[in-house]
Amino acid sequence: MIVPRLIERKRDGERLEARELRELVLAYAAGKVPDYQMAALLMAIYFRGLDRTEMNALMDAMLESGKRLDLSRLPMPRIDKHSTGGVGDKVSIILAPLVASLGVGVPMMSGRGLGHTGGTLDKLESIPGFRTALTPSEAEKQVARIGCAMLSQTAEIVPADRKIYALRDATATVEVIPLIAASIMSKKIAESLTGLVLDIKRGSGSFLPKLDDELELAQAMIDLGAQHACPVVALVTAMDRPLGHACGNALEVAEAITVLKGAGPPDLIEVTYALGAEMLVLATLASTREGARAMMDAAIGSGKALRKFEEIVNAQGGDKAVVNDPLRLPQARHRSEFVSKRAGVVQTVDPRAIGYGVIELGGGRRNMEESVDPSVGFVITSKPADHVAKGQVLATIHARSKTDLETGRSVLERAIVISDAAPSPLPLISHRVTLRGVQALA
Amino acid sequence: MIVPRLIERKRDGERLEARELRELVLAYAAGKVPDYQMAALLMAIYFRGLDRTEMNALMDAMLESGKRLDLSRLPMPRIDKHSTGGVGDKVSIILAPLVASLGVGVPMMSGRGLGHTGGTLDKLESIPGFRTALTPSEAEKQVARIGCAMLSQTAEIVPADRKIYALRDATATVEVIPLIAASIMSKKIAESLTGLVLDIKRGSGSFLPKLDDELELAQAMIDLGAQHACPVVALVTAMDRPLGHACGNALEVAEAITVLKGAGPPDLIEVTYALGAEMLVLATLASTREGARAMMDAAIGSGKALRKFEEIVNAQGGDKAVVNDPLRLPQARHRSEFVSKRAGVVQTVDPRAIGYGVIELGGGRRNMEESVDPSVGFVITSKPADHVAKGQVLATIHARSKTDLETGRSVLERAIVISDAAPSPLPLISHRVTLRGVQALA
Repeated sequence: MIVPRLIERKRDGERLEARELRELVLAYAAGKVPDYQMAALLMAIYFRGLDRTEMNALMDAMLESGKRLDLSRLPMPRIDKHSTGGVGDKVSIILAPLVASLGVGVPMMSGRGLGHTGGTLDKLESIPGFRTALTPSEAEKQVARIGCAMLSQTAEIVPADRKIYALRDATATVEVIPLIAASIMSKKIAESLTGLVLDIKRGSGSFLPKLDDELELAQAMIDLGAQHACPVVALVTAMDRPLGHACGNALEVAEAITVLKGAGPPDLIEVTYALGAEMLVLATLASTREGARAMMDAAIGSGKALRKFEEIVNAQGGDKAVVNDPLRLPQARHRSEFVSKRAGVVQTVDPRAIGYGVIELGGGRRNMEESVDPSVGFVITSKPADHVAKGQVLATIHARSKTDLETGRSVLERAIVISDAAPSPLPLISHRVTLRGVQALA
Repeated sequence: MIVPRLIERKRDGERLEARELRELVLAYAAGKVPDYQMAALLMAIYFRGLDRTEMNALMDAMLESGKRLDLSRLPMPRIDKHSTGGVGDKVSIILAPLVASLGVGVPMMSGRGLGHTGGTLDKLESIPGFRTALTPSEAEKQVARIGCAMLSQTAEIVPADRKIYALRDATATVEVIPLIAASIMSKKIAESLTGLVLDIKRGSGSFLPKLDDELELAQAMIDLGAQHACPVVALVTAMDRPLGHACGNALEVAEAITVLKGAGPPDLIEVTYALGAEMLVLATLASTREGARAMMDAAIGSGKALRKFEEIVNAQGGDKAVVNDPLRLPQARHRSEFVSKRAGVVQTVDPRAIGYGVIELGGGRRNMEESVDPSVGFVITSKPADHVAKGQVLATIHARSKTDLETGRSVLERAIVISDAAPSPLPLISHRVTLRGVQALA
């Protein structure tokens, strides 16, 4: 295998053979192919694509590069939820304890911030002491004992994907359908699930702003799942604005706790419930989505879901007192309100600008080596179509310094557009995709 | 500067600002931007290009990243020759001593193997003891004393280009006109030349197989030279077959010595003379190219050129006895003749297949970390349009093992095509390009 020739062939639009992709991916995982060659190949794939055969081969090689969770002897159904990534998307932190409290096994393997989006792991790690680097054996035991584990890919699980995922983030090669599909599904298949629910983000803040691309991605993942006996249901949800209010790691954990307590932003609650209903039906713990919603209402109303979250935080070494006192989460030294300069209607809250803004404040990574400040970010209480008055508070900036407050202010000035026109935000949940096809919901 | 955003913008076809390119290139040279991000950017540039302003900015940043040779106080003209890279191209090893023996100062900074092509440095280092890593001060003194130094880019000279050049080789991003032009010209401007002759390779074995691209490259470099008071003349020469017979480091040095002794393959001699004539005229040491040719004939006939080569080898720590006894060069343990399976006419000797074949034998690099075996390669005595008999020797394979001999044999079987049709090889020297425009020669 001469790696530059493989890169060259893909660059020139040729197909790579399954055995070539397998050899390359396993060699990369073993450190025998350097990052810079994989980076060049990924950019060539950005421009030239991978066909279904290549995508399947890529996923199989990534699975072959490591271990899987061994959960097949557990008595409960095992369902995970995965989002294609957005800004303000803290759904996993609510959903995992919520459905686990209702009897679903949730072996949730999540990622870090990628591109302009945040990552569940970075968010969870804002809880003092919270440890996401569970070994496969620790994760297996924790799922058996309390029904849920929220973990990172360790070096043992799909290591090839873990390396490629981090590299894509640093090299502007995130937005590639077959790479996204193979990456997500390799991790999910490695969790030995009995079902999977996908949250496919749509709109300017998603990695694939075009709806057709989103549906293609959903279909690709559903097919990959079907080949490994894992039924998949996908919902297409809006990411033309941040989800909920909080954007930034600790701020998002605090908002997730608020929802587990029965309050919080309506859009965040609705997306969480819609995904949770699919999980409970796939798990055969509810026979209808309406029944599933009632079960979730009860779990939140009774405090059962919140206690499950406390149990997970405690099991993974985190400070469980944050559940009752979210002020124990890291707090930014400086905060400042951002007000509207005029009366009018909110046209856009640009999620991409907000996501990169969080990175500029220190809350995300510019390259693979950087660490993250969990305390910083934005809480944006205004939504597209809201009518606002001059001087009305639209958001709060949380920053490390006064200079960063100014940076945050200029980010919000670009991101939040107010005028007199009637805006047209995307429907919150627009499509449902299964192996049988695409169903429009809105 | 958020590097993934710069990559993303270039990936999406946007222009990068001069100050952004400058900051990026200087940070990369300083090790503050990792190889993998530069690799992804280079592949994005492969697909999206750089305009003239971007190319100029790139070259200026590369020059700014290091030192230049300080030769401006020397009394003699200083002319270099640069080839865009081919297979079997050992012209520099002949030309530098040849024109230096006639009074031209030749501060020749060369490269290593790139893609399927060989590099002058790798070839020279097959001479036991030959040291190409001269400091700028050593090179300056040597040019002042004996008229010529053949050196690598050290860490001090255009370090940004040195890093990018090595990275492009390993990431299939060699074939990009503005990157080639900026890379070559940054090194040449750093040599403080009074003139430059370019050998622009054309055909299947060149980095840019299309003639239009070749002429665009020549024009780009001529323009960059004009902006730095360095007149440039370019000749377009054939690289649809290897130049001369030998392909492989030590084998090519031996062939260069043969030419300096007045023998050797006619195509190699002709290209060397044509380029040398341009150098002597640019140096104002000859008033016509015909006069220059007579001077070169005399320098070879008298042994003056060969003695200059011996002087250079000796000055740079090499075993000068190789000049009289080329068998002192590294010899491959195994060698085998390759014969024609049929009678007919040689249609092609595919230089790209031969170049990659030398790499497969161990004579070139698969990635930046590999070392090179100088002894291996091919000596291919047949040329396109030659009539050959069945069983006639077409080439000799030089290899490290019997297995490698078989590898070499299958390379030659793919590379050398014999049939009954009339082949149409490219004219050896087809165009001459100056600031005034393109002149067709054949």
